[in-house]
Amino acid sequence: MSAAGEEMYALVERLYPLCRSITGDGVRATLEIIDEYVPLQVHEVPTGTQVLDWTVPQEWNIRDAYIADTAGNRVVDFAASSLHVLGYSVPVSATMSLAELRGHLHTLPDHPTWVPYRTSYYKPEWGFCLAQETLDAMPDGEYEVRIDSTLADGHLTYAEHVVPGQVADEVIVSCHVCHPSLANDNLAGIAVATFLARALAEQTPWYTYRFLFAPGTIGAITWLARNAERVKGVSPAHGDTPARAKPSVGEEPGAGGRVKHGLVLACAGDPGRLTYKQSRRGDAEIDQVMRHVLLASERPHRVVEFTPYGYDERQFCSPGFDLGVGSLSRTPYAGYPEYHTSADNLDFVSPKAMADTLVLCREAFTVLDRNRRYVNLSPYGEPQLGRRGLYDSLGGRSDAKQAQMAMLWVLSLSDGEHSLLDVAERSGLPFDTVAAAADALHGAGLIKA
Amino acid sequence: MSAAGEEMYALVERLYPLCRSITGDGVRATLEIIDEYVPLQVHEVPTGTQVLDWTVPQEWNIRDAYIADTAGNRVVDFAASSLHVLGYSVPVSATMSLAELRGHLHTLPDHPTWVPYRTSYYKPEWGFCLAQETLDAMPDGEYEVRIDSTLADGHLTYAEHVVPGQVADEVIVSCHVCHPSLANDNLAGIAVATFLARALAEQTPWYTYRFLFAPGTIGAITWLARNAERVKGVSPAHGDTPARAKPSVGEEPGAGGRVKHGLVLACAGDPGRLTYKQSRRGDAEIDQVMRHVLLASERPHRVVEFTPYGYDERQFCSPGFDLGVGSLSRTPYAGYPEYHTSADNLDFVSPKAMADTLVLCREAFTVLDRNRRYVNLSPYGEPQLGRRGLYDSLGGRSDAKQAQMAMLWVLSLSDGEHSLLDVAERSGLPFDTVAAAADALHGAGLIKA
Amino acid sequence: MSAAGEEMYALVERLYPLCRSITGDGVRATLEIIDEYVPLQVHEVPTGTQVLDWTVPQEWNIRDAYIADTAGNRVVDFAASSLHVLGYSVPVSATMSLAELRGHLHTLPDHPTWVPYRTSYYKPEWGFCLAQETLDAMPDGEYEVRIDSTLADGHLTYAEHVVPGQVADEVIVSCHVCHPSLANDNLAGIAVATFLARALAEQTPWYTYRFLFAPGTIGAITWLARNAERVKGVSPAHGDTPARAKPSVGEEPGAGGRVKHGLVLACAGDPGRLTYKQSRRGDAEIDQVMRHVLLASERPHRVVEFTPYGYDERQFCSPGFDLGVGSLSRTPYAGYPEYHTSADNLDFVSPKAMADTLVLCREAFTVLDRNRRYVNLSPYGEPQLGRRGLYDSLGGRSDAKQAQMAMLWVLSLSDGEHSLLDVAERSGLPFDTVAAAADALHGAGLIKA
Repeated sequence: MSAAGEEMYALVERLYPLCRSITGDGVRATLEIIDEYVPLQVHEVPTGTQVLDWTVPQEWNIRDAYIADTAGNRVVDFAASSLHVLGYSVPVSATMSLAELRGHLHTLPDHPTWVPYRTSYYKPEWGFCLAQETLDAMPDGEYEVRIDSTLADGHLTYAEHVVPGQVADEVIVSCHVCHPSLANDNLAGIAVATFLARALAEQTPWYTYRFLFAPGTIGAITWLARNAERVKGVSPAHGDTPARAKPSVGEEPGAGGRVKHGLVLACAGDPGRLTYKQSRRGDAEIDQVMRHVLLASERPHRVVEFTPYGYDERQFCSPGFDLGVGSLSRTPYAGYPEYHTSADNLDFVSPKAMADTLVLCREAFTVLDRNRRYVNLSPYGEPQLGRRGLYDSLGGRSDAKQAQMAMLWVLSLSDGEHSLLDVAERSGLPFDTVAAAADALHGAGLIKA
Repeated sequence: MSAAGEEMYALVERLYPLCRSITGDGVRATLEIIDEYVPLQVHEVPTGTQVLDWTVPQEWNIRDAYIADTAGNRVVDFAASSLHVLGYSVPVSATMSLAELRGHLHTLPDHPTWVPYRTSYYKPEWGFCLAQETLDAMPDGEYEVRIDSTLADGHLTYAEHVVPGQVADEVIVSCHVCHPSLANDNLAGIAVATFLARALAEQTPWYTYRFLFAPGTIGAITWLARNAERVKGVSPAHGDTPARAKPSVGEEPGAGGRVKHGLVLACAGDPGRLTYKQSRRGDAEIDQVMRHVLLASERPHRVVEFTPYGYDERQFCSPGFDLGVGSLSRTPYAGYPEYHTSADNLDFVSPKAMADTLVLCREAFTVLDRNRRYVNLSPYGEPQLGRRGLYDSLGGRSDAKQAQMAMLWVLSLSDGEHSLLDVAERSGLPFDTVAAAADALHGAGLIKA
Repeated sequence: MSAAGEEMYALVERLYPLCRSITGDGVRATLEIIDEYVPLQVHEVPTGTQVLDWTVPQEWNIRDAYIADTAGNRVVDFAASSLHVLGYSVPVSATMSLAELRGHLHTLPDHPTWVPYRTSYYKPEWGFCLAQETLDAMPDGEYEVRIDSTLADGHLTYAEHVVPGQVADEVIVSCHVCHPSLANDNLAGIAVATFLARALAEQTPWYTYRFLFAPGTIGAITWLARNAERVKGVSPAHGDTPARAKPSVGEEPGAGGRVKHGLVLACAGDPGRLTYKQSRRGDAEIDQVMRHVLLASERPHRVVEFTPYGYDERQFCSPGFDLGVGSLSRTPYAGYPEYHTSADNLDFVSPKAMADTLVLCREAFTVLDRNRRYVNLSPYGEPQLGRRGLYDSLGGRSDAKQAQMAMLWVLSLSDGEHSLLDVAERSGLPFDTVAAAADALHGAGLIKA
């Protein structure tokens, strides 16, 4: 797995210099690189398209931007870092005094060597982000200010990669691709998602896994608008009221649609411990799986409740959809000083941390994939396991006692209400042991899914 | 508010000397004084009226009572304290030895200077209450014993004061007016109820608030018997069986009637911390509100479970009605040595304590009044708050971040199941902030009640 | 009760030498002795009878068994202890070397003086159990090996004793009678069950109590197969699917049949504290009763969750039946070193421990028998207890206050949802006081069952 860590880190290094935003060529270039690892289906959605309560904005592209002194020296240069320009800056070409310029400059006085990350997507604005120490070193006087950007009708770009499963029911894995040169937020998440997709494809998983590489908020909203039937079974545009959209009591999250579970990946490469943020429901199967796997793994970790803030779980868990989608990160959203600054760089993420995140995801999806509700077909008294070879066959195994207990537990709790993970948690037995016992009982015709 | 405290104390002082009981002129005189503060509708219910399982008793009035020694000195005198006569004493006029008299004397040997409060409403009896030290000083010999009382057909008297609200749904606030010269139990409760009514009337509240000033037990039972339709929507006299009387699963307390919430006020002026006794249901909205407000106020306080003993919450919470009615006191029912003795006097209650009780009630009813369940009208993904000015408008406010979070929380949880108080408790945000966010969202047409 | 302890111990002493197994004359001899204490209905079920998923096996009987050295000395002798022969050993008569014999010898190296208890019911096998020190003392050489047993078509034997109640609804008390010379497992359980039956018969209990004396696993399965209608109301053989077999939400355990509650008795005489193992449901009435009685008795005790391993609660609680059957023992199943060894002998159990188990059972069944759900017939306000003599009658009793509180609690919670035990637990009053209050209220026509 350390090999995977190094490969993920190499992918992060390639993506790091690109200037991504919620639209534009930086996103396209990013998706082209990811496509080298896993084939992507890229979607282009025209400016002005109505998506749920939102409208796809104009496309933003930028070629060059700088602040130069009278000698022509670029004291702030977009070529050095994509962070130097306020995201979605309108074009500007002017000469102005430092005093006039100041209103357009963003710094972090508390971290004078760091460059902040700032955007103004929906309010026309221009600006530069720079280190406080750079600003402090700028003498009064005139400066040439230039942002060679365009805001024009175009497209919003996002991509999907699907790992086909044995059933059409889907697990979505989502990561945002709209942040410029920030390593943890979210190049590490992109890298873990990419390698997770590759790992899942090595065997045919139970569920169909759909990976989304989309800009934050507007990208998730665009995907939801175009996949309402996949998500809910009906289009919210066709008379689906909020009241009807709420599943009935006892109905599974997303019961109407194919999307059964989901995970948002972000901040996947920093040195902090793993953090799982539960879905809005809190009792979705993905919540139970993540809690179980984190606990069973004996990793230091944290499980937090849903809040309607953070990454695109906000959209997937909005009350109309209310999907069973949680979010996995290491240090969570806005939880580290380097967040949204130039200090979230290639030194802040590591192959080891990304590899650890990837391992946890694989463990979780292995449990999710094997988790079932069975019905005991011989529920009156215990079935005679011995004459079916289910005792004898165990005689030579060192874990025979545990395997036998697991069979009795699966038989006892397989009433259609308890999943194998419920059995594992109630019995205290490892999930693998329980799932193996279920396989043996299923093979003997004693339980059915 | 300290002005209110002094005014409430002055009201207690005026009411203190009157000899109240469950019927009679002492109650009428009490209501006449309260009527000077808030206009009362006084009800007179004739003796013999059937009220639920009870019958309105004869009316009791008393003019004079004493025990005099052979020299004619009154050693126990009703004129000195209304407590000296056993409540509902039948008339007596006799001369008897101390030995004979002793069976009719009530003292508190553990508190030799205190006079106990005793009654015998439903069993014909006469008696005197006196200090143990008074009794100890009484030499053997003959005494003149006289109680100039009448027990005759008349009326039970109670009163209502209504503060009209924006809706017909009602909150009842009840206090008992049957105790004689006892300050905390319940003149302080009467005073807080009176000034609470005045405070609520300063603005038009959401709910209609109905204040009951009625004798304990028989008064509440009489009111319930005469207001069954208001309370339950149907009269229990007309074929309503206990099985039907129980609300269906998910139905609100009192769903059938106008009375949605209620609070019994008693012992509102002693130096102890505030105590809220939950309704029989324990999960009524008034319970959640009182718990929340007490906790948020950071006052030392206590929340206790319902018991079928205490004040008139016993009647309102009887299983046939099962209203969402809790009880607020400072030191609770029978929880202090001065309880039901002459030591529950004007020194035992204070303006400060009554003012504090009043403030808490006002805080609680402010929350109750603003608490709503909304439905998010844009539940698919987050609505774009920016284009509605809900982000911009916040820019200059210091609590902008919290206000924005509150909007996201309200949107997330407004599925018809969560009240604003639920949102406040789950988010950890102040109720006021959440309610203000709901107002803003409601103004923008994003949620509906 | 100490007299009962001595009598139970005497019964254990009589039963101890017999060689019981899951079939055969040892079981019959055991039942004949129990029949001297309580009359038994003995059932004989032919070999080959299909019982649920199992088949009644051949009957096993044994007359003699030994290992003798060349001098003819019996170094291991069945006559000395029934444990010396592997249960269900096929017959053998041979001379063989110690080396050849070793594969058929079972010892406990960690407890060299103890003889283990081993069986091979469903796999034809022969063997001896002996102390490790006996084996160590056996010189190499030839040994005469003889087991004079028969495995032949015959019957499985079990017995029932019924204590008739006021209603046909049943409580089953089950104990296994298949273990040979083991005192705690399960002669102490047999003795407690026997004397519990005698005690219950001294008065007519509410429920009908059915005592089962049956071999473990196959005996319980046989009884369940022959009593499906009693247990579930329908025969699982006649089209009852597992889905239908599961009670509806809110339905009581075993709602379809007469068996409402049950208790498996085992390991009832060792010096350990009492242990109650809950039913699979965990919220069955028997679970609540046992938890309550153990707690109220202030005995050191332990309540553990259901596991699908142990004694015949495994069968009664299998998901198709899912009865409200728990298990009472002192030190639980396999929880002591002496378990399934010759050290589980007459020294390991005591009259005192068995008497204590019996007392607890009687306390529990007293509560179970009196536990009811009542409906308050006067649920609107409190009924006037005084005019019905329910206050007056209490005047002279020292527990008057508690009795009055109990009446108010019963009235408050008697809405058809709360049992008297619920009332006791919520009020903190003793169950006896609550039940007496219910009797008084029932006598006054204020509540109905």
